[in-house]
Amino acid sequence: MNDTRSYVAPFALGETITGGAVGRVIESASDSLEVGTAVLHQHGWTDIIQADAETFRPVPDIDGVPLSVHLHILGMTGLTAYVGLTAIAGLNKGDTVFVSGAAGAVGTAVGQIAKQLGAGRVIGSAGSADKVALLTEKYGYDEAFNYKEVNVREQLPKSAPDGVDVYYDNVGGDHLEAALDVMNDGGRIALCGAISGYNATDRTPGPDNMANIITRGLKLEGFTLANYLDLAPEFREKMSPWFAEGKITYDETVVDGIENTVDAFLNMMRGGNTGKMLVRI
Amino acid sequence: MNDTRSYVAPFALGETITGGAVGRVIESASDSLEVGTAVLHQHGWTDIIQADAETFRPVPDIDGVPLSVHLHILGMTGLTAYVGLTAIAGLNKGDTVFVSGAAGAVGTAVGQIAKQLGAGRVIGSAGSADKVALLTEKYGYDEAFNYKEVNVREQLPKSAPDGVDVYYDNVGGDHLEAALDVMNDGGRIALCGAISGYNATDRTPGPDNMANIITRGLKLEGFTLANYLDLAPEFREKMSPWFAEGKITYDETVVDGIENTVDAFLNMMRGGNTGKMLVRI
Repeated sequence: MNDTRSYVAPFALGETITGGAVGRVIESASDSLEVGTAVLHQHGWTDIIQADAETFRPVPDIDGVPLSVHLHILGMTGLTAYVGLTAIAGLNKGDTVFVSGAAGAVGTAVGQIAKQLGAGRVIGSAGSADKVALLTEKYGYDEAFNYKEVNVREQLPKSAPDGVDVYYDNVGGDHLEAALDVMNDGGRIALCGAISGYNATDRTPGPDNMANIITRGLKLEGFTLANYLDLAPEFREKMSPWFAEGKITYDETVVDGIENTVDAFLNMMRGGNTGKMLVRI
Repeated sequence: MNDTRSYVAPFALGETITGGAVGRVIESASDSLEVGTAVLHQHGWTDIIQADAETFRPVPDIDGVPLSVHLHILGMTGLTAYVGLTAIAGLNKGDTVFVSGAAGAVGTAVGQIAKQLGAGRVIGSAGSADKVALLTEKYGYDEAFNYKEVNVREQLPKSAPDGVDVYYDNVGGDHLEAALDVMNDGGRIALCGAISGYNATDRTPGPDNMANIITRGLKLEGFTLANYLDLAPEFREKMSPWFAEGKITYDETVVDGIENTVDAFLNMMRGGNTGKMLVRI
């Protein structure tokens, strides 16, 4: 599982975290990579890198959009949202969608992509009043609530009076339990990450309403993105026109300087950022 | 959900339980039903019934096999096993399969159908030494254990040292938790019934290892047979030759006389039967 660990599990102390990076080719001895081409790579956080051409993946330039989007909403982050909604949850037009941890980089992508794919009502939860406001004012959520100020299990039936068809779970725990209460017959749950369990020192009990999975014919499916990278071309093909038409927005939290990386990472794990956390070098 | 309740949920006091029945046409005013045709119907437990021809569904006679199999292994019971293994769990050749409540009518069908569909190792749990013996000696299970005499979570890794690809869950609770421990990457869990929760007066916590669903890319899906009746022809087409070749066996517990029905039902819920419980009238 090591190759997929960065998407799904806590980082062990001493483990190397290699973030993806984006840049432009400034010198090339390869016919396949022209100078000026925008490329993604996994060579770590560095201002200049020299390596074999095949270790760089060209990405398209989109007018008026910074290259950094290939590190999040047009990259793995957006693909994670797309895969969860399509390959895992089988989103249908008109579906009511609930997204937990909706103000994160993945969650903001999920809400917008769901709407573009024809979802009906889209409901999000987030951990502060500011984030909740962003969800409805900026990211196209129809409704949002602050899960730190309500009992999720009491709130969700009010936010989703007609039930939920697709639940995109970034949180687990009380959110999953609340969702199982309100899922409609034939509902699908995409399980992506389990932030709420990251600090658990021992195993915490699962939802007390698992029987609903049977009586309502529900599907729960977890996924790690590494198994769905073949959907990347389809994803970019759909996203590019939405982007060009101004239908997709995003936040970046950019931290300047590699010396601030550790603070940035800890801040992210505490929920201090909105959207993708990036480090500019 | 009422039309599917009999497969998945406890029966409420005062609720009518109408069992399916099988018999032969003894008089007919319909061109579509000849005298002597074997038919299934839902007219309740009665020795003679007169009703419209379209309320009787003809079923094939198979040499040397009693009509009663259409009430279980060739009927809804077998179809439940088949749907769970195929449409829900997507059984692949060579898969290791674990079945809980394996000595029940559905469980004995699951093990045999899994083998015919090309499963590798098939492991079952049951609630007595006699039932465990039947699983390996009669129903083709490769391994079985008595869940009343072991800790399921400690036993299952020993019974499935190479992990489990498909778990057919008739039990829930500790069995589901144990299965989640040993599921292989990409494993599928079909949730069919939750006998262990039938007597719960309040909600019991779910598995403490739900995070495995994400890290291992597992799928859990519950189902009620009513949504999969279109698979019945495909199921009978596959089962009939297996039957004719003597590859499928079954138990019936036949109780004589309608006056013994209540005792028979209570006995079934306490686990006193092996195979399908039938009442002969």
